[in-house]
Amino acid sequence: MNNLSQQTCSACEIGAPLVPKDQIDSLLANLDGWAVEDSSMDRLLKKYTFQSYAEALEFTKLIADLAETEGHHPKITLEWGLVSLEWWSHKIKGLHMNDFICATKSDEIYSSL
Amino acid sequence: MNNLSQQTCSACEIGAPLVPKDQIDSLLANLDGWAVEDSSMDRLLKKYTFQSYAEALEFTKLIADLAETEGHHPKITLEWGLVSLEWWSHKIKGLHMNDFICATKSDEIYSSL
Repeated sequence: MNNLSQQTCSACEIGAPLVPKDQIDSLLANLDGWAVEDSSMDRLLKKYTFQSYAEALEFTKLIADLAETEGHHPKITLEWGLVSLEWWSHKIKGLHMNDFICATKSDEIYSSL
Repeated sequence: MNNLSQQTCSACEIGAPLVPKDQIDSLLANLDGWAVEDSSMDRLLKKYTFQSYAEALEFTKLIADLAETEGHHPKITLEWGLVSLEWWSHKIKGLHMNDFICATKSDEIYSSL
């Protein structure tokens, strides 16, 4: 799954396949620092730290650009020195492959700063 | 308290005065749609809706600008069509007058879009 960042999100319609539970673990093993948040539905969650508010805001803008490019929008929470991302797929109430693709791309953006 | 938007945040040091509980209600009465979220410490919370992601992102950027200008940083949560703001004062573990000032200015920014 090292090529996730070369993939783009597919349209996620109602009825699209959830990533099966047993595949989630192996996908997570290839991500850095992401965890599954199990609330009413599974979400991929990661917290990124920054040395300044300006850097955290810049990351937020870049993730928003990614969201628009992919047509897939995470919950982005911006605080001083901290940005939390949550990726999940509303329409299927859980994790789609799109979420793992976008998690990987989020890490690449963070690494590029 | 109609002049809150003409005020600027003061430095909020450890030991600065919390807004007393009985004043919180009267201050809230002069705000539009803000509520106190009582978690481990009081926070002012409001959710703003938008017709597009671009508008929600633009509002996020403007609130971030306000935060840097005032030296007071809220939790900003950006989702598709929705921005949630939470203002509170870490150092005094609750609500300072700064939070009511910034809530008022947040509304002005929203109205200006």
